[in-house]
Amino acid sequence: MSDRLVRTLATVFFLLCLGVIPALGAESQVDAASLAREWREDHEQAIVDDYVKLLSIPNVASDAENIRRNAGHILALLKARRFDAQLLEVSGSPPAIFAERGSPTASTTLMIYVHYDGQPASSEGWTSPPWTPVMRDATVEQGGKVIDMKAPFNPESRLFARSASDDKAPIAALLAAIDALDANSIPLSVNLKLFLEGEEEAGSPNLARMLDAHRDLLGADLWLFCDGPVHQTGRSLLSYGVRGSYGLNMTVHGPARPLHSGHYGNWAPNPIMGLVSLIYSMRNESGEILMAGYSDQVRPPTLSELEAVAAAPDVDTQLMQELGLARTETEDRIELAILRPAMNLRGIRSGDVGDASRNSIQTSATASIDFRLVPDQTTEFVRIAVEKHIRNQGYFIVHDTPTREERAANARIVELDWDEAGYPSYRTPMDDPLAKQVAGILNELADGSLVQLPTMGGSLPLYVIDEVLGAPILILPIANHDNNQHGNNENIRLQNLWDAIEIYATVLTRL
Amino acid sequence: MSDRLVRTLATVFFLLCLGVIPALGAESQVDAASLAREWREDHEQAIVDDYVKLLSIPNVASDAENIRRNAGHILALLKARRFDAQLLEVSGSPPAIFAERGSPTASTTLMIYVHYDGQPASSEGWTSPPWTPVMRDATVEQGGKVIDMKAPFNPESRLFARSASDDKAPIAALLAAIDALDANSIPLSVNLKLFLEGEEEAGSPNLARMLDAHRDLLGADLWLFCDGPVHQTGRSLLSYGVRGSYGLNMTVHGPARPLHSGHYGNWAPNPIMGLVSLIYSMRNESGEILMAGYSDQVRPPTLSELEAVAAAPDVDTQLMQELGLARTETEDRIELAILRPAMNLRGIRSGDVGDASRNSIQTSATASIDFRLVPDQTTEFVRIAVEKHIRNQGYFIVHDTPTREERAANARIVELDWDEAGYPSYRTPMDDPLAKQVAGILNELADGSLVQLPTMGGSLPLYVIDEVLGAPILILPIANHDNNQHGNNENIRLQNLWDAIEIYATVLTRL
Repeated sequence: MSDRLVRTLATVFFLLCLGVIPALGAESQVDAASLAREWREDHEQAIVDDYVKLLSIPNVASDAENIRRNAGHILALLKARRFDAQLLEVSGSPPAIFAERGSPTASTTLMIYVHYDGQPASSEGWTSPPWTPVMRDATVEQGGKVIDMKAPFNPESRLFARSASDDKAPIAALLAAIDALDANSIPLSVNLKLFLEGEEEAGSPNLARMLDAHRDLLGADLWLFCDGPVHQTGRSLLSYGVRGSYGLNMTVHGPARPLHSGHYGNWAPNPIMGLVSLIYSMRNESGEILMAGYSDQVRPPTLSELEAVAAAPDVDTQLMQELGLARTETEDRIELAILRPAMNLRGIRSGDVGDASRNSIQTSATASIDFRLVPDQTTEFVRIAVEKHIRNQGYFIVHDTPTREERAANARIVELDWDEAGYPSYRTPMDDPLAKQVAGILNELADGSLVQLPTMGGSLPLYVIDEVLGAPILILPIANHDNNQHGNNENIRLQNLWDAIEIYATVLTRL
Repeated sequence: MSDRLVRTLATVFFLLCLGVIPALGAESQVDAASLAREWREDHEQAIVDDYVKLLSIPNVASDAENIRRNAGHILALLKARRFDAQLLEVSGSPPAIFAERGSPTASTTLMIYVHYDGQPASSEGWTSPPWTPVMRDATVEQGGKVIDMKAPFNPESRLFARSASDDKAPIAALLAAIDALDANSIPLSVNLKLFLEGEEEAGSPNLARMLDAHRDLLGADLWLFCDGPVHQTGRSLLSYGVRGSYGLNMTVHGPARPLHSGHYGNWAPNPIMGLVSLIYSMRNESGEILMAGYSDQVRPPTLSELEAVAAAPDVDTQLMQELGLARTETEDRIELAILRPAMNLRGIRSGDVGDASRNSIQTSATASIDFRLVPDQTTEFVRIAVEKHIRNQGYFIVHDTPTREERAANARIVELDWDEAGYPSYRTPMDDPLAKQVAGILNELADGSLVQLPTMGGSLPLYVIDEVLGAPILILPIANHDNNQHGNNENIRLQNLWDAIEIYATVLTRL
């Protein structure tokens, strides 16, 4: 070390002590968050207007034309912000969007994942059409009224549209964060990459091929998955994993044609009753899966995972009040319940109910089930256990409408239609070093209130990234927990959007 | 006795032996059936054309405008045939049609009942729209092709439309029978009255008031209920009773808003699972009703009813083949199964299935149930037994959407919506004298193949006629048993229509 250098360092140290030169880490943190906030306060109208445009493009993965309109729209937004952006293609899949913005001084490459497709939606059940965004002063359930989309906005107002939360919100917030940083000439501390998927809600059937085909672009030290809701208390949340997902449509077949329920009732097998009995044999009202061997692969939670749950605020009572529930399915708090495998009945259909009901015995009855998987369950094992159980109930399994011969030969027939694109769960160990650094930054920004959970209840195809690219993955959600994600009247609370802008601005300049 | 009279009688006897003067009873029987057949063979095109016009008028009881169009159309057809015809009205009900054609020599008054309304139908599931009649060369299930509606007709062809069998077919056949008799100048042997109801498929909520308000017109020695299908063998059928009917929509409530099934699955009570468990506690797969006390009122079948069943052809094997069934719900043959009370699941709905399914926990799940009642069950007793059972499963019963307070106070909430218009069963004793006479006439026309059954499986509001007017009632069905009554693609086989013309012509001239 030269004398000159020693003197310089001494001077710097002196000035640091006086507070003349800001300590780079801490100061840029404060700057980024508060500068982002100031910028946002001046640009709320533009942020909302731009977001409404994005939300107005229908985004169901199977709607090829519109999904490409979304991709093109987002690509242009990224290019306008000096991202090196392109569409990634593999056959039979909506395009993914890849974008990169390098930082000359950064040593860490951060990948942010968002999906721009949304759950299917029909206008039925929505108070306003799913792809016609409206602002309301509260939730629909609270009797929220439609209000003008004019700044200044009440941060408790909500923007309603399919994907307003899940999962276009991170796109809107990230673009605003970049704009705020650029406007203040604050450089990113990371090499930033974005991977925006177009078929997550369809179960990401082509994600593995997509990642594999473009693996040269997708290297990163950490993936941040931006999806899902924050903690139910409204506190920031960092999750270390997700449950896996595997869908099944299960149709019990009855008589070959609909029958008059008077003339044939008590004699012709009623497929609704068959389906009811079958479901009842698979799962009980406490959520326990009753199928033999189904849970043999389940790895119990680690001590640090159980400790993280214990440290998290207990939200059961608040949630029950909010959801109008006087009981839950389990004695355990929700964070423990979602550490377990689940069999959720998401739909059931046969004939009609109410005024449209007819006195018939139906020809079939269908239940739609989503299985949620935990480590180390595989979809193949789940499928085998379920099918074995169903056979043990006396059912012959088909995968298409049963033939005349199959009907004649089998007293009980069930048609099973499994998702092509089910996937296992994923968890990052809670002591991963980069994960700990991210958690530290977020916890500081949140004044020590960050909640850390070993897993989300929901599902994301994180296993694919782990399998193909081998990078650790964290989930950083931003949406309000009561966003009606996947349901009717999906919405984003504006304050959650505003908070997300500060979170992104901070992480992108401090990591 | 004068000599002159003795000579005259001797001459008559001589001529009778020679067959010159026909023996009035036997001969008019032969005449009516075969003359009706000849007349029909010459007029098939007109019969079908007229019937298509009638079937083209939508006829759901709640569709006030169209139901009146039906009534007006039928009224005109009756007046054109010298019936004294009028619309009967009571407030809040579709009109009934009353018509009368006296016979100067008749001592017996016969009332024929038909209903001109039909089950609700949507185009969904129908191969051709329900009120756009088409002719096919076979059933839809057999791959029947649409064919021209031009005579000569193959009697195996079928006319497809809502109510083609249930229950406009008796109207078409009766009009043709009257035309055939008039064309051959054969007088009726009975005072004929017609009562055509306009809301049977809605559960006849106003029938008792209608009968009571017009009881001075409706006196009769016997009511013939013309509704339902003939025996499954195709043989003529006379039924002595019906099961009662009582509908229930049962909605289990879950969380106040739809929830992401990943984030809340295993914790928030799933209403589909609640509904499944509740149904499973009420009925088993063998059709047995498991609710305590439910069957306490059931009167066992009489010996003559059991004998009638034993004498009827066994159709189970044929039916199972035809319906693609390798089992039934019960060990008993169908005629015994329908002597018992039944709980039929006619519809179940929550969320979506198949491609439209979303990974949500739904807010509610609804099953639609039709209870079939047997003597001496009352709807009130049934309701009490069902509600008591449901309460015993831990449910709080509401009759409207639960309030916030109800939700907070009750762990399990079910909303019950009972039919306003349920009704009990009815059976005429099998040894009633007029019933025996009708059975004799029909059995002779059918060459001894008439099937007699103590009850139909289906329901008709016969109890009201018994209660208000006190006349014995028989059910004389004419439709093919595979008519898809109440389902999609309802149809009438032409030969069944042709047979009905002869049956009516015979009964109206021999009773």
